[in-house]
Amino acid sequence: MIKGVNLGGWLVLEKWMSPQLFAGVAADDEYYLPQDLSETDYQNRIAMHRANFITEADFVRIASMGLDTVRIPVPYFIFGDVQPFIGAIDWLDKAFNWAEAYGLQILIDLHTVPGSQNGFDNGGISGVQNWAQHPDQVAFALSVLHRLAERYGDRSGLYGIEVLNEPATEKMYRNMLDRYPAREPEMTAENAPITFEFLYDFYKTAYEDLRTVLPADKVIMFHDGFDITQWADFFQKNTFENVVLDTHHYLMIAEIETGELTLDSYHKYIEGVGDSIAEVKQFVPVVVGEWTLFNSLATGVDTKGGLNPTQEVFDHEVTVDKDRALKIYQDLWRLQVDQWQRGDGYFFWSYKINIDTINDKDWFGWDSWSLERSVNKGWAEI
Amino acid sequence: MIKGVNLGGWLVLEKWMSPQLFAGVAADDEYYLPQDLSETDYQNRIAMHRANFITEADFVRIASMGLDTVRIPVPYFIFGDVQPFIGAIDWLDKAFNWAEAYGLQILIDLHTVPGSQNGFDNGGISGVQNWAQHPDQVAFALSVLHRLAERYGDRSGLYGIEVLNEPATEKMYRNMLDRYPAREPEMTAENAPITFEFLYDFYKTAYEDLRTVLPADKVIMFHDGFDITQWADFFQKNTFENVVLDTHHYLMIAEIETGELTLDSYHKYIEGVGDSIAEVKQFVPVVVGEWTLFNSLATGVDTKGGLNPTQEVFDHEVTVDKDRALKIYQDLWRLQVDQWQRGDGYFFWSYKINIDTINDKDWFGWDSWSLERSVNKGWAEI
Repeated sequence: MIKGVNLGGWLVLEKWMSPQLFAGVAADDEYYLPQDLSETDYQNRIAMHRANFITEADFVRIASMGLDTVRIPVPYFIFGDVQPFIGAIDWLDKAFNWAEAYGLQILIDLHTVPGSQNGFDNGGISGVQNWAQHPDQVAFALSVLHRLAERYGDRSGLYGIEVLNEPATEKMYRNMLDRYPAREPEMTAENAPITFEFLYDFYKTAYEDLRTVLPADKVIMFHDGFDITQWADFFQKNTFENVVLDTHHYLMIAEIETGELTLDSYHKYIEGVGDSIAEVKQFVPVVVGEWTLFNSLATGVDTKGGLNPTQEVFDHEVTVDKDRALKIYQDLWRLQVDQWQRGDGYFFWSYKINIDTINDKDWFGWDSWSLERSVNKGWAEI
Repeated sequence: MIKGVNLGGWLVLEKWMSPQLFAGVAADDEYYLPQDLSETDYQNRIAMHRANFITEADFVRIASMGLDTVRIPVPYFIFGDVQPFIGAIDWLDKAFNWAEAYGLQILIDLHTVPGSQNGFDNGGISGVQNWAQHPDQVAFALSVLHRLAERYGDRSGLYGIEVLNEPATEKMYRNMLDRYPAREPEMTAENAPITFEFLYDFYKTAYEDLRTVLPADKVIMFHDGFDITQWADFFQKNTFENVVLDTHHYLMIAEIETGELTLDSYHKYIEGVGDSIAEVKQFVPVVVGEWTLFNSLATGVDTKGGLNPTQEVFDHEVTVDKDRALKIYQDLWRLQVDQWQRGDGYFFWSYKINIDTINDKDWFGWDSWSLERSVNKGWAEI
């Protein structure tokens, strides 16, 4: 049973998780940041961000909390071979040494690919999704995975490699188009959803290549493309060694699907997810690789599925009732952990976010995205 | 009884506490950093440092640890009126809002003055000490204190104001000359130790001015100039309301004074300090405003009084015996806290340092300067 946390926002940037990194520029994502900053400004900010956002001290703290594994999102340019982005493999090297020193394991998660697999800001470039249509870029992603496996395959600190984060299939693709407008509309010309047929193929190819390098005790992980019901057949028809299915579940999706902001509706929704996890677990181990405590109920405002203050101005007076929020968070922590244990464990999203909920009231409630803060506030008990 | 921690290295820079901020430049201190960087590089690094090194999340964690007060070192240019330095009053404003939201209090500590009161790197400029010889600069320091009192005097989050950190009197001045060479020797022409006569005068002047603004329930704090035996007469002859004496004690001083690296010698030395605290406490409340767990015994190398890897190359093989280090740290934590409670409490130095003890072996043991890490490693139990 995995008890883990994501180190989101560190080697893959998300503006809402570290707004100060994007101070004074129009960029909403990692793609446009180096276009909007001078070369030295970009270098300074990235160097300072990587050296400060996650450090050795965080690995000490994560281990002291009783967690066993961290999921580290990495970008496709991690090896430093895609201009103008700055490689980050030195930081992943350091993370392996920290993890091994403090008894943690690492799941490397390829979180972005050239042209993007989902058009999210955290997929590298908002509103653009054309990676799967470019065989050369698909091959490039495979080469990054191969190099990661070669570099870390024998490390005791390696739990496994996830070959692709959150490929957006049809339904999520439509959702993405609404939420993430492209800055340059002409770049959307080749946009298309990823099909499950493509995903099945890509995962088999990635698996076959990675297993030539990765020892059998290292996990290879596949994300479910936002539909956990699409995988029972696939894992019955194909034989893999030590593959785990990753599925992501956020309370904001419950809000959109149920149209309600009540504890009851969260319970019904999350228990339904637990049922679907239990079902596919007959054929493959299942880990919930992303989930969180954040929800509109405790925040006191309908965030329309999690739109954040960098995307939407919330024109509201927040009534802070700390005890009520505490109870909601404690309930939703227990609810989710119980359901995820019907599978094979979890990674909370995310360990840290550097927002200021006190001096910028718009961010009230958004600290429930941070496990560090949630534990320190008594909202989460690991 | 104060249970506190310093937020060192945040608004006043110390290279050894955040080496990445000084990456690629010769500067060893805050004075030379803007000379060695372009204007925008300097701005980017400082902005990223301030936004990342200490955040709202740290106030949450500090409160959750059971501490009640933070001591925040501030520079003389905090109001942004000394070029080329960047004012930091906006960050102190944020800190007050964080402290009040999470039930902490703040001791504002004027840590640097123009020309420096001690010639330490953390006094702003290494190897230079001429502030006290310049009446205009003494007046400037008083004006900074006055403005701080006006801005925060009525805040519930204000514990008090310390008028000057670590003025180096004769003995420490000689020590400083050995340890902190000036980058520009011509700047040392007016160097001189601060006399106790000067200090007595300066403190009386500062007190009289600050009390016109600061309510009686806010502390005014005086550092002892590195000699706690010089203050009994002063506090018998003068009447102050709500003044506290600050005294700093480091285990490395015990190492220099006793010439030994044994638990016994630390005990004898620190108990002697406790005696001197108990003595002067008859006349004035006493807080130990700086102390730490770092020591050469647990680190496994004689650091010659705490020379750090940015100052000295330690050419040694460290034998890591975690259990032995754990026992030493736990013993020295208890020893010191017990002695400081013979006075009126303490502020550990410091909450955070951003060094990497795993990937850079030279830093092995230096994480005991961090209360965050010491608590998470079980070395300190508050």
